[in-house]
Amino acid sequence: MDQSVSSPVPVTRRKTLAAAAFVSMGLAFGVGPVAAQADPLPSWNEGSAKQAIKAFVEKVTKEGGPDFVPVAERIATFDNDGTLWSEQPNYFQGMFLVDRVKALAPGKPEWQTQEPFKSLLAGDLKGVAATGVKGIEELLMATHAGMDSAEFERIVKDWMANARHPKFNRPYNQLVYKPMVELLAYLRANGLKPYIVSGGGLEFMRPWVEAAYGIPPEQVVGSSIKLKYELSGDKPALQRLPEVDFVDDGPGKPVGIAKFIGRRPVFAAGNSDGDLQMLQWTTLNTGPRFALIVHHTDAEREYAYDRQSHIGKLDKALDEAPSRGWLVVDMKNDWKTVYGP
Amino acid sequence: MDQSVSSPVPVTRRKTLAAAAFVSMGLAFGVGPVAAQADPLPSWNEGSAKQAIKAFVEKVTKEGGPDFVPVAERIATFDNDGTLWSEQPNYFQGMFLVDRVKALAPGKPEWQTQEPFKSLLAGDLKGVAATGVKGIEELLMATHAGMDSAEFERIVKDWMANARHPKFNRPYNQLVYKPMVELLAYLRANGLKPYIVSGGGLEFMRPWVEAAYGIPPEQVVGSSIKLKYELSGDKPALQRLPEVDFVDDGPGKPVGIAKFIGRRPVFAAGNSDGDLQMLQWTTLNTGPRFALIVHHTDAEREYAYDRQSHIGKLDKALDEAPSRGWLVVDMKNDWKTVYGP
Repeated sequence: MDQSVSSPVPVTRRKTLAAAAFVSMGLAFGVGPVAAQADPLPSWNEGSAKQAIKAFVEKVTKEGGPDFVPVAERIATFDNDGTLWSEQPNYFQGMFLVDRVKALAPGKPEWQTQEPFKSLLAGDLKGVAATGVKGIEELLMATHAGMDSAEFERIVKDWMANARHPKFNRPYNQLVYKPMVELLAYLRANGLKPYIVSGGGLEFMRPWVEAAYGIPPEQVVGSSIKLKYELSGDKPALQRLPEVDFVDDGPGKPVGIAKFIGRRPVFAAGNSDGDLQMLQWTTLNTGPRFALIVHHTDAEREYAYDRQSHIGKLDKALDEAPSRGWLVVDMKNDWKTVYGP
Repeated sequence: MDQSVSSPVPVTRRKTLAAAAFVSMGLAFGVGPVAAQADPLPSWNEGSAKQAIKAFVEKVTKEGGPDFVPVAERIATFDNDGTLWSEQPNYFQGMFLVDRVKALAPGKPEWQTQEPFKSLLAGDLKGVAATGVKGIEELLMATHAGMDSAEFERIVKDWMANARHPKFNRPYNQLVYKPMVELLAYLRANGLKPYIVSGGGLEFMRPWVEAAYGIPPEQVVGSSIKLKYELSGDKPALQRLPEVDFVDDGPGKPVGIAKFIGRRPVFAAGNSDGDLQMLQWTTLNTGPRFALIVHHTDAEREYAYDRQSHIGKLDKALDEAPSRGWLVVDMKNDWKTVYGP
């Protein structure tokens, strides 16, 4: 096809290369004629849930349509625990905390007699719970503060590589939901920009979420403790202080979205009452909006829980879903697969 | 060129259209053969400052080169006041504050006798200064809190449309530096992702920075007051509370970068000691890094100030610049133009 020889970079050849690049990019991103026939959500069973998601994406991306949303405004926010990965028998960051207390205990002999450490080390979780919010905060600060950010990142990565989930005997970051990872990719392919907006720790999530979900660090909103800048010689560091900075849960989620993103989402996904306000903030707005709740109905492949659960309690948001028009995803029936291989 | 007639969307035609689109995009974004000869920084005089910037961008984008940086890691952070727009005779957000106190005063008769409002309304800025940090905070809360985020956005936009700078008699958002706007565009065209990291208010900046700089709301890091989510009926709102949440200045800048972005920048720009720690955090790291300081040396076209200034004091950072390898931009000599037309 390259007929031109007179110039070092002939125009015809440039155009041909550009066309080839463009067409192959189109195919890679799922917008080409072949890929258009492929199912972007293969781990979702056919049915109303899958249809509702696709119908929303199609209408907000249809240029000239009444519900078209410009790319820049296509913000999507996802809870993490119980929405993108599992959260039973305890939040995975809670499992990390327990493992950290055990790992640090040999250097802390006083913990053997001091609550809440004593109960935790004895495996007495009721004893830990009896120490209340103050006890939990003490555990949090003993394991999440007192080092710099770079060191904490190493600790999280190391734990993620070595720890195993008690039921599934797999690394925790393999317990991400395949249908939700597909949904994130499908949204991205259609110009939506997915953020994590989680009650979990900012710096607990960032070291691994990009590999797990394709979500880069700057698209993670989460809870945080205070940081302090220090320069010693030519080495700057951010020290993690034992003080809560921000709790990105419940009514904190719209606040986190406003602070970090500064736009109201058009799409939100959660699984518990901790997501209630984020779903309200997203959908109680003008223009096309979509919210979904992952309902844990699958005791066999994952877990079944909602109104009575101590982790990921889903009660008020489940009541509000029908009148708000939120999609309730029935994990057992809507998902063909839960985890990847 | 379209030879095919057998299909409603013939492959040849698709490729031709794709090629045309691709080539015209290439031209529009300055990567085509014609645009490649155009100067991406026309408002910068030829010289070492301009050369240093271009040399850095070329080396971090040279695939296979020793200093290549992957696109995802090309984070650039820019101070706003005095770096992207002017900040004299007072921070423009300070001018906004004064205008707001005056606008609200008729409904607040008690301000006539109550400091710091009394001094401010009498035009006695020394009197205001004498009320100290507590006084400034009172002024800030009286003007920046007590409404919801949407209402505050309207107030800022309205002020920006109507207020005029005392020296230049232009809207404040026209007093952005043309050379810096070009620099932002040049970085973006080369895959760098510019963020604002400013001591200014998050929600004071977001309503206008996208139009002024091409920086979207989610790439703005700033100081903030606390927000509170409220739902009344079907109307959710974020109330602005009279309480400081985060001060994104000095040692707060690396903290803000860590919280909002979660990556260390490869490029940073500032103009005062309030940017010192951001420049350290950026450059005292492995790999290619670049920092610049805008030095206000142009009393004629803008202002001349540094070590003794009450606004944008540049002292320690100026001392540190040579040993750290930071570029000091001499506004008078390095910039052909200061403001746009």
